[in-house]
Amino acid sequence: MDKIRIGIAGYGNLGKGVELAVRQNDDMELCGVFTRRKPDTVKTVTGCAVYGMDNVAEHSDKIDVMIICGGSATDLPVQTPQLAEKFNVIDSFDTHARIPEHFANVDKSAKDSGHLAIISLGWDPGLFSLNRLYAESILPDGKTYTFWGKGVSQGHSDAIRRVEGVKKGIQYTVPVDEAMDAVRSGSMPELTTRQKHIRECWIVPEENADLQKIEQAIKSMKNYFDEYDTTVNFISDEEFDAVHNKMPHGGFVMRSGITGDDTHQMIEYSLKLDSNPEFTASVLICYARALYRMRKEGVTGCKTAFDIAPAYLSRLSPEELRAKML
Amino acid sequence: MDKIRIGIAGYGNLGKGVELAVRQNDDMELCGVFTRRKPDTVKTVTGCAVYGMDNVAEHSDKIDVMIICGGSATDLPVQTPQLAEKFNVIDSFDTHARIPEHFANVDKSAKDSGHLAIISLGWDPGLFSLNRLYAESILPDGKTYTFWGKGVSQGHSDAIRRVEGVKKGIQYTVPVDEAMDAVRSGSMPELTTRQKHIRECWIVPEENADLQKIEQAIKSMKNYFDEYDTTVNFISDEEFDAVHNKMPHGGFVMRSGITGDDTHQMIEYSLKLDSNPEFTASVLICYARALYRMRKEGVTGCKTAFDIAPAYLSRLSPEELRAKML
Repeated sequence: MDKIRIGIAGYGNLGKGVELAVRQNDDMELCGVFTRRKPDTVKTVTGCAVYGMDNVAEHSDKIDVMIICGGSATDLPVQTPQLAEKFNVIDSFDTHARIPEHFANVDKSAKDSGHLAIISLGWDPGLFSLNRLYAESILPDGKTYTFWGKGVSQGHSDAIRRVEGVKKGIQYTVPVDEAMDAVRSGSMPELTTRQKHIRECWIVPEENADLQKIEQAIKSMKNYFDEYDTTVNFISDEEFDAVHNKMPHGGFVMRSGITGDDTHQMIEYSLKLDSNPEFTASVLICYARALYRMRKEGVTGCKTAFDIAPAYLSRLSPEELRAKML
Repeated sequence: MDKIRIGIAGYGNLGKGVELAVRQNDDMELCGVFTRRKPDTVKTVTGCAVYGMDNVAEHSDKIDVMIICGGSATDLPVQTPQLAEKFNVIDSFDTHARIPEHFANVDKSAKDSGHLAIISLGWDPGLFSLNRLYAESILPDGKTYTFWGKGVSQGHSDAIRRVEGVKKGIQYTVPVDEAMDAVRSGSMPELTTRQKHIRECWIVPEENADLQKIEQAIKSMKNYFDEYDTTVNFISDEEFDAVHNKMPHGGFVMRSGITGDDTHQMIEYSLKLDSNPEFTASVLICYARALYRMRKEGVTGCKTAFDIAPAYLSRLSPEELRAKML
């Protein structure tokens, strides 16, 4: 059987995760990492070849699915439509408000060039979105709740690192147990931002920094911390490096619904991830398999997880799936 | 917009659940209940018309989707292929070992007559199957665990009611917390049948029945109880009717997996259902919407939940889904 030939565009944490995930799926092979850096300065974990992004078009007939691992703020809005001119592409675009616009751009590019793209994959957007859709379709009368964490928020960690006097910093989003239990009880509570999550910061201060001032600056930061109960903890360089060197994350999607006259029904989906980028990469990789199969059936344009029949994701045949997994 | 015209074949707990679920989805209307009993002896909850099953063929152009609510042991293997000759059909066939055979029979019947069928819907098989598929596709290296309960097992309740001296009886399957916590820890334990679930029986004995003999007969029953730790509780008629008059159920699908070098990742899906038949009916109904749309696109033959792209389930348009739910 021909292996699915995978390319990686952008080699940060997510790109490395994809590299490792390909290794776990022997119906795939990694055919190249593409970087905007000087290729000879990039060393891959598995020894995969590295090429300059400028020459990516030369590889268009050697790669079945290009997995684009750039950031959502500035990389993906440009890269995904551009690369979709030459490749079938997958991305993890996660700026929820801009998804319709991104979808339209990628769809046009992919349709015009006869490629297939699947965007906004990962766990939120991605698996959490799927669970919201399934749960709301099954229980039309009810309320959906999403909780995130405990996990590292990259955006909030970046924000605290910009505060004066902060040498190193990391922020964990922590869902509030009492709020989750209230949802599980079926009472369908209205929950404020503050009631749902707390924010936990771990900081290594610069020498002689004003700790009170740092704490105040963080806790009052608009859009990031002011609507939350936030804790700020100061620790040593050594403790920071030893304890806070991972990127765990996760969360919960809950649907509390009513059927019949007043019968309560509860659906809950949760993830507990020791590495957010490695897990996200694993989602991208299994959708690369779906993309490859759907493209062979002639499908082009842009799709999301909502459009992909689950069977396309599995290595098992439809017969095996029905016999073993149904 | 034309409403989706739903028929119900078989009017027990599941059929009633479907009747109530249609009421929650105003893109659908219930066009008839079909029964093997004398139609004038059956009174529906919402006042829907009741017809004899013998005359069902006369309704073939008045119903878009027939939801077959018979039992898996003897009804569905016959009814689903038969009704698929005249209707698009949905069933909840749940005898896991016989799914391939049932699929083949329904597929032939539906293809020959130009209809579409979706079988084995509900939550297990159904939503639990979907979660097994998604989770195993994303995390190929790992172990999947399914726990059921706490909930009423119909088969086990029937079995204890056949024991001599038992007037009324109900059996709850209860997942063992310690086993679930061991799975969540990431240790990927090997769990025996006995370690995963306990079985809890509530019995109203006949007058002067030998309680010890009843308990012994239940606990040693082959295939049903002998591999489990079972508790047998004797209660009064009044308590039985007051406390054990519902059909709650639920359960957990967990995937414990490894990515990268040795990074643990955990996916968990759970249901807590106050009424098993009403929830199952809600699943069937939202797949009726998917069936209706796919049939309009020309699809025929037999499908399962694995073959249905999630977007087909939702009342929202693809644009709305991307904007609001992704």
